[in-house]
Amino acid sequence: MIKLVVLYDHPADVEAFDAHYLGTHVPLCHKVPGIERVEVTRFGPGPGGAPKFHLLAELYFRDAETMAAGLGSPEGKDLGADVANLGGTTATTLVGTVDES
Amino acid sequence: MIKLVVLYDHPADVEAFDAHYLGTHVPLCHKVPGIERVEVTRFGPGPGGAPKFHLLAELYFRDAETMAAGLGSPEGKDLGADVANLGGTTATTLVGTVDES
Repeated sequence: MIKLVVLYDHPADVEAFDAHYLGTHVPLCHKVPGIERVEVTRFGPGPGGAPKFHLLAELYFRDAETMAAGLGSPEGKDLGADVANLGGTTATTLVGTVDES
Repeated sequence: MIKLVVLYDHPADVEAFDAHYLGTHVPLCHKVPGIERVEVTRFGPGPGGAPKFHLLAELYFRDAETMAAGLGSPEGKDLGADVANLGGTTATTLVGTVDES
């Protein structure tokens, strides 16, 4: 299993970000061909105090080829284009292989 | 569902870190009372080039009370003490609520 990990910094307008993210962006994730699972984590205060990031999105695919094909599809491009609607919130994007146990 | 998220920076000695993390630290995670799932993601090159972090660890619990009790237990303290054996690798720790879909 492989996943695309996106760590969003704190948005300027948290309510607008959350509304668009959960109402529009996550549904677009589910339309991407080959996507197996979408997990969204909203951070709260932790052991170090205020969270360093606002939100974590994880998009799971069977393998790298499936992910590349999904993100390169018209639905994947729609998802990428929708990032422009997230209010300019900066993010860190990573790709990794998953060991679940 | 709630999870503890730990983003490890790149270790000075990747091989030693990975060996200890996977061979010792992950088994200690599984001993923590109330832990439901442990997911470890090893990052490779992504859309932005070299990954910003080395490894992502996610420890899932039913709720915040269960997590606090688990991490405060003797097994949770053993896990915390083992962080000293990770070669001084710095990390970002977060706590968040999980929406899976």
